[in-house]
Order: sequence, then structure tokens, then C-alpha cells
Amino acid sequence: MRIATFRHNNTRHVGRVSSDGLHVQAFEVSADIAHLGALRLLEAVVAGGQWPSVSSQQLAVSDVQLEAPIPVPRRNIWCVGRNYHEHAKELSTSVFKDSNTNTQAWPIVFTKVPECVVGPFDSVHLPGAQVSEQIDYEAELAVIIGKGGKNILAADAMQHVFGYTIVNDVTARDVQMRHQQWDMGKSFDTFCPMGPWMVTADELDGTHTRVRCVVNGEQRQDGPTENMIFDIPTLIETISRGITLFSGDIIATGTPAGVGMGLKPPRYLKAGDVVRVEIDGIGHIENRFI
Amino acid sequence: MRIATFRHNNTRHVGRVSSDGLHVQAFEVSADIAHLGALRLLEAVVAGGQWPSVSSQQLAVSDVQLEAPIPVPRRNIWCVGRNYHEHAKELSTSVFKDSNTNTQAWPIVFTKVPECVVGPFDSVHLPGAQVSEQIDYEAELAVIIGKGGKNILAADAMQHVFGYTIVNDVTARDVQMRHQQWDMGKSFDTFCPMGPWMVTADELDGTHTRVRCVVNGEQRQDGPTENMIFDIPTLIETISRGITLFSGDIIATGTPAGVGMGLKPPRYLKAGDVVRVEIDGIGHIENRFI
Repeated sequence: MRIATFRHNNTRHVGRVSSDGLHVQAFEVSADIAHLGALRLLEAVVAGGQWPSVSSQQLAVSDVQLEAPIPVPRRNIWCVGRNYHEHAKELSTSVFKDSNTNTQAWPIVFTKVPECVVGPFDSVHLPGAQVSEQIDYEAELAVIIGKGGKNILAADAMQHVFGYTIVNDVTARDVQMRHQQWDMGKSFDTFCPMGPWMVTADELDGTHTRVRCVVNGEQRQDGPTENMIFDIPTLIETISRGITLFSGDIIATGTPAGVGMGLKPPRYLKAGDVVRVEIDGIGHIENRFI
Repeated sequence: MRIATFRHNNTRHVGRVSSDGLHVQAFEVSADIAHLGALRLLEAVVAGGQWPSVSSQQLAVSDVQLEAPIPVPRRNIWCVGRNYHEHAKELSTSVFKDSNTNTQAWPIVFTKVPECVVGPFDSVHLPGAQVSEQIDYEAELAVIIGKGGKNILAADAMQHVFGYTIVNDVTARDVQMRHQQWDMGKSFDTFCPMGPWMVTADELDGTHTRVRCVVNGEQRQDGPTENMIFDIPTLIETISRGITLFSGDIIATGTPAGVGMGLKPPRYLKAGDVVRVEIDGIGHIENRFI
């Protein structure tokens, strides 16, 4: 199932998207529930509830404003760094220069604040040259956790995946590096475009799909998720060791090679640039940087 | 004013603590509001509202169960690393070994998940030897943001401080280091004891107080907050550059010298240890590790 959060007539709804991605029918739920997007529905279904019924009214997706499927996540988004081999290589002298063989054995995990999430076609605001002059894109598959848990084994981990969505893990490279820890350089307002909807795990195998990024029409990234250094089950096992994961937690699984900083010379984003992230089986998001 | 969240007769309340710290009177607010501890009251007061009236019933603090003033923060807690010179030195060959002179010019900022917060006298659960064998304490002054904002100047920053509380930024050193980014090693369940209450900024100047840590009766840390490398106004200016801060955001301001890892040889926490963190003008928290 594809589940979208969207605005129609100035009201937020959550709805079921048709398999061709052209139409959406709103779930019949209260405004309080819809306010958090797919989060409360996901929690209810995980707890054993049924999906609510949908309105008989079919709206054209082109007539609504799509928002992030979970517009404000329940806590910071878990993010994984250096999770594709070629990407690890392209930033080995910059972002990953302090890594060593010991840390290579473990995934790098950081976070983005919930409030930096924006919709799949919203603008991303450059924070200004006085804050950062090195804004970069990172196309990523995001895993949305269904059943929560702690000390989840990799062998059981896929049972905890509710679905998937697309994020652009927008990053201020200079800020990321100068603070040593990355959360700040990843968390500027509007730095997490997400969407266009969530695809449930029965319809997509996140371990066998493909992540692409296109900047102003030029393809920059194209990586199969089979190439992850730490696969999705390993990531869930790792993050849940000693830390309880909750329904609605989001894990951005890292980006393939081809980020702007990895190009020679580096090419950072500037006002007017349009970044499109596509994942097979989900669709695409496209955001203008302003 | 001292504002505590507490349980009495199996119900959560928020209340005003007497200046001697011995009695508490519950604010007359709904269970929904009290459920989030001081958070909703703080938001209402920041928005221009009055403090609600308190019950005429004076409860002995010793007869209630104190909880963290904000039991589940609105998003991950902002935390600052390496913020006292002597502490920077004591971990210069371990946690901070990858730091360089460039990063020294900027604070290190990472996060802890909201759900790792526990009460001021609750137990902290060691995650088990298979997860970590290097559990350490970090006594810290935590700033609670009142009026939110973005691009806040240091000169104006203290106007955004609503109050202060105490946290123990409990850390799994091995996990902190092996993942390169620190959020995971700082976020194990129960790894953020907080309390015993919040003291509003009109009653305490956080820039001139003293943070102490006592382990099993032995004093390990004792640092004046004047010794911070990056003072509170600078931290607020730094974190709010491009990132909106919200009412109820919490910033743990870093720990003085004397952590277990900095001792020669290192001394990590084990089951049965009792860690007390004291801050002049606030009080103390004390937690048994089990």
C-alpha cells in the first residue's frame, strides 16, 4: 500500500494512493490523527488494528499538495553515514578522514531533527553564506519502523520494517566537519525533504532497489541498495542494541557515491538548483533550493 | 521558581517546589498537560500566559516520587562535548583523539534520544557486557529553552533561557568511539537521569554555578561553569544558526574533568554503583546503576 499525507482544501489528510500513483483517497480519520500524517495510523495497525476505511472520493494526486508521509517524526531521524563503498571512498579525504579501521567495522549513526522535514516537492532553504557555503545532497532510502523493540536480531529485523520512503539528507559539509559531530550540519531548517509517500514493506523489498539522484537534469547518484556496507537488518540490529526503537522511527540508510563534495572539483548546491531523488518502487521527490 | 514533575497516588503532576526544597504544591492543570511534565506550562508561560494556580495542599517532597521535569523532551536533547578545558585534556588520547585545531574552534554538538530520560532518583540500567563494558558518568548543567528562535545572537541568548536542571549524560565509551558519531553510545535506555526539578533563570545564573559528581561517596568532578570553553550564550548562538530552537528544547552543556575514562587507569561504572550529581542553586540527582 502507498500511504500519503497531503493537503486539500487547506486541511491535512492521510490517504491511500492508487497503484499507478495518480489518485488518492483520504482515510476517514479525525483531524487530530491526520495532523501527524501516517504516524498514528501506523501505530494503530502495528497494535493490531485495521486500516480505517477510505473516502469514496478519488482525488487526483496532481490536485493535492503532497507532504512528508510523517511530517514531524516522533523524535530525531536516525541516519547512517558512509554506507556505500564507493561513497566511503569519494569522501575518504574529507568527511571520513578521521575514520579508521576500527570504526569501519561499525556503522556511523547520527541524527537529524524532526522539524527539518519538509514535503516531497517543497523548497529547501539555503541557510545563507554566513552559515554554510557547502550545501550538498544525499539521496537515501528511509526505513520506517513498524513494530518497535530493543536488541532486535538481524534475522528478525525485517519484521520490524513497516515501509519505506525517500529522503534527501541535505548536508552543510563545512558545518558537518567543523563540529566533528554531524547532527547540526544535517539539521538546518528544511534539510530533510521526504516522500512522496510511504510504500509498505509487502510491496517493496528495500534490500533490492535502486537509489538515484539527479541535479538540474544531470544524474549524479545511482546505487543499488544491495551495495550497502551495512544492510537494513544489520542497521536495525545495531541501532536497537540497548536502545528501544519505536513505531514510526525513521532510519535513513546512507547515500551512494556521487555527492557534490565527492566531485573533482566539488560542486555544491546554489539557489535555483533542483534536486530530484528517485527510488525504484517508490517514486521520486524533487526540491528546489532557494 | 522551582518546578517539579512528580507522581503522587499513581498520578503524574507538575508542581511548584518551596524554596527550601521540602514541599511541593501541584499546579491545577489537566492530566493531559501534566502528562508532559513542565513542557506545556513552560510553552504557555513563554506565550504570555500566567502560571496556573497551585493546590492549597502542601505535599512533602519526601512523600512523592520525583520525575524528570520534562519526562519526555519534545525531540532529542542537544548535548555538548569537550566543553571544559581540563576534560578536553583528560580524553585527548581517546574520545577526542580525532579532534584537531580546526574543530577546537567550534563546539561539538550531538544528541541523546528523548526516551532515555529517567527521573532524578531512578535506576540506570547497564546495557549488558555484550553491548558495552565502558559505562561512564558526565555531570552536566542542562539549559531549558524558553522563547524559541533561529539565528539567536549570543548577546540576546540569555533571554531565551527559561531555566536549568541537572543531567547525568551517561555514556558507553566503547560504543561512543566505535561508531564515530556519538548519539548511539549516549542514548541507551535510562541513560539520561534528569532533575530533581527545573529552576527558572530568575533564580539561578547558570553561567556562575558549580557542577559536581560523586561516585559511591567519592568526589570525582567539581567544575565551575565559568570554565566552559563555549559559554551558554555561545552554545545557543551556535546551535540556533540555521536551526530553529523551540520552547522546551534542552541543551546539556558538557562535563568538567574527572570522568571515569579520564582516570588512570580508567574506572567504569558497575552494578551497584551510585552516582550523585550536584549543582549549586539546583540540588542533586542520585542514581543507582543496576
